[in-house]
Amino acid sequence: MKISNRAFNTPASPIRKLFPKAEEATKRGVKIYKLNIGQPDLKTPICIKKRCQNYSKDLVYEPSPGIPELISTWAKYFATDKLPVTDKDLIITTGGSEAIVFALLATCDPNDEVIVFEPFYTNYKSYAIQTGVKLVPVTLKIEDNFHLPKIEEIAKKITSKTKAILINNPSNPTGTVYKKKELQAITDLALKHNLFIISDEVYNEFVLDKKNKFISMMSFTRIRQQLILIENASKKFNVCGARIGALISKNQEIIATATKFAQARLSSPSIEQYALIPIFKTAKKYTQKICQEYKKRRDVIFEGLKKIKGTVCLKPEGAFYIIVKLPVNDTEKFCAWLLDCFNYKKQTVMLAPAKDFYATPNRGLQEVRIAYVLNSKELKKAIEILKIAIDKYNKK
Amino acid sequence: MKISNRAFNTPASPIRKLFPKAEEATKRGVKIYKLNIGQPDLKTPICIKKRCQNYSKDLVYEPSPGIPELISTWAKYFATDKLPVTDKDLIITTGGSEAIVFALLATCDPNDEVIVFEPFYTNYKSYAIQTGVKLVPVTLKIEDNFHLPKIEEIAKKITSKTKAILINNPSNPTGTVYKKKELQAITDLALKHNLFIISDEVYNEFVLDKKNKFISMMSFTRIRQQLILIENASKKFNVCGARIGALISKNQEIIATATKFAQARLSSPSIEQYALIPIFKTAKKYTQKICQEYKKRRDVIFEGLKKIKGTVCLKPEGAFYIIVKLPVNDTEKFCAWLLDCFNYKKQTVMLAPAKDFYATPNRGLQEVRIAYVLNSKELKKAIEILKIAIDKYNKK
Repeated sequence: MKISNRAFNTPASPIRKLFPKAEEATKRGVKIYKLNIGQPDLKTPICIKKRCQNYSKDLVYEPSPGIPELISTWAKYFATDKLPVTDKDLIITTGGSEAIVFALLATCDPNDEVIVFEPFYTNYKSYAIQTGVKLVPVTLKIEDNFHLPKIEEIAKKITSKTKAILINNPSNPTGTVYKKKELQAITDLALKHNLFIISDEVYNEFVLDKKNKFISMMSFTRIRQQLILIENASKKFNVCGARIGALISKNQEIIATATKFAQARLSSPSIEQYALIPIFKTAKKYTQKICQEYKKRRDVIFEGLKKIKGTVCLKPEGAFYIIVKLPVNDTEKFCAWLLDCFNYKKQTVMLAPAKDFYATPNRGLQEVRIAYVLNSKELKKAIEILKIAIDKYNKK
Repeated sequence: MKISNRAFNTPASPIRKLFPKAEEATKRGVKIYKLNIGQPDLKTPICIKKRCQNYSKDLVYEPSPGIPELISTWAKYFATDKLPVTDKDLIITTGGSEAIVFALLATCDPNDEVIVFEPFYTNYKSYAIQTGVKLVPVTLKIEDNFHLPKIEEIAKKITSKTKAILINNPSNPTGTVYKKKELQAITDLALKHNLFIISDEVYNEFVLDKKNKFISMMSFTRIRQQLILIENASKKFNVCGARIGALISKNQEIIATATKFAQARLSSPSIEQYALIPIFKTAKKYTQKICQEYKKRRDVIFEGLKKIKGTVCLKPEGAFYIIVKLPVNDTEKFCAWLLDCFNYKKQTVMLAPAKDFYATPNRGLQEVRIAYVLNSKELKKAIEILKIAIDKYNKK
């Protein structure tokens, strides 16, 4: 019995596929600094946990597009940033991942094309395979801090099959916060060629420097009928396990379509939807604080990496990731070696090889993604250990 | 901006699309007996609710294939029925719906075919459109109580594109519990033609008469490497809003594949996974009791329907649904009329037109699905009102 080709072609998560090696190392008594996965160490807010604990209703299906009160409070949260999101523009999804799958299904038929900027969030690959969509990558450069190339470079990729441009701002894995000029150029391109924009803005709260500003695609008035925003509570509120995201569009045909997809999977988890309702009212207060924390960590990581000879990276501007080029030939082998063969005083680090964040084969072979999801003290130690490991690896 | 063809072709849920009419009726002060949706009125077990309330951990990502303890207790639950499910054969999914999508993705490439028995669970259509799979229906007959036709009738549907047979036992919407002979014939056919069987057994606990017995596809030894079981906690334990299901296979390539799909959506909701762990240990005790309740209701519904002149139905054997042919021309119009135009002493009933449970156009036009998810007293009243409504409708 043969599994399908698409099942065969679906990549194992590069972030998670090193797990068995990590388990083995742990069994050998090695402490691992886990910088491979975007699972912050920060606490889930007490108010959310309390609401979970106070949930007393039976676990019945909630409405497929989400609990109305959550829809309403989430829509209002956008008003803080003067974005015109109303209740009828937003449906709740089971995580941001489901929102992206819905967006691809709504805009593309099988074999249609979506332009993406590589390196990109690696799970986009799986969503594309599941939905039969072809991702067409525009390669970004580490020396540009992964900002967009000239618009002509992007325009070149458009074919009769292109249906959408998928952009992640601030970007996982690069930490890039796109500038108004860049985003404006993308909207102009989409308007000219009649393309949808799928704007994954789940890290919107995490812009680390005052000189930069997060600009939502929704702030460009003319693009709104072609725009789908991807939203997620996971990282904003440290509730990764809640699986509550949202899909937002001013195009009511998109919302009606997403609602049909939502009906087929019945509903999103009840308790977590209910528990998230109040946090949106004080969201900015909460996220500003954790944003300060990420800024501190970013500085620790960046200063630490600068001291490792042969590394290349620019200072990330947002989210909590950095792509760094290491002085090794193949980071996939190096990351495995870190877990299998190396330890310094019974300690090692776990990183995500960047190769799988690219769609173009053999790109990013020397790069890793680091998620700065540990506190500053631990990050300092982790970087010290990484430095020792690189020295040892290159002397092998 | 045009949405995709598949988005356009995705049906709105026939079960949910009458909701706006129901809301309007409610606003007019009409009480609606809701027999349209498989949302039982039974209580979520206290032990599950308590565990939700006691959940004190941060909401972090749990492992993509599920919390190991839940996997383990769910696998052991099958041992009660002497089915050889071990921890490595089971992954947790976000509802049964996700398990079906994973099964279709794992076995079929776009344009591949899956044989289904109509009328079938209507959301299969949406899953098929989302995954690009073509459903090839074998029509069952109400006068056979929707049991399978001769195996030759099914064999006729097999082409070079056929990858799997999808069967739902006990069946939603028909309430049919398939006999050993029927299931054996299906496995023989699958073995002969090298097809996967996707066996949706989420209603396994709800077989209403002692003379019938639930037989899992897993009990046929030879088919196991070609078998994917779909499981779900929703109906068994009255936790529809928990969104916790499972995909089970002895074929480790299928499990590895499903795990890759699971990694892409990161994890299933944490609290509900945790909360379900203990109930599996006493599952049978719980489900036997509610099965008795459904039997009582089935009898009420069935006796009541017999008294309505012109209806056709046989006694359902399992789950909590019945398909009944009504003496009206078009149940879609009739069901809308029930909400828009009819009330008897400020009461009406809500039913699901059966048309959308068929893949073949214009089948089941006179049929409705009734979910007996209200208590016997209410069901009695609902059937009385239905009788009055039919009389009035036919005198229009």
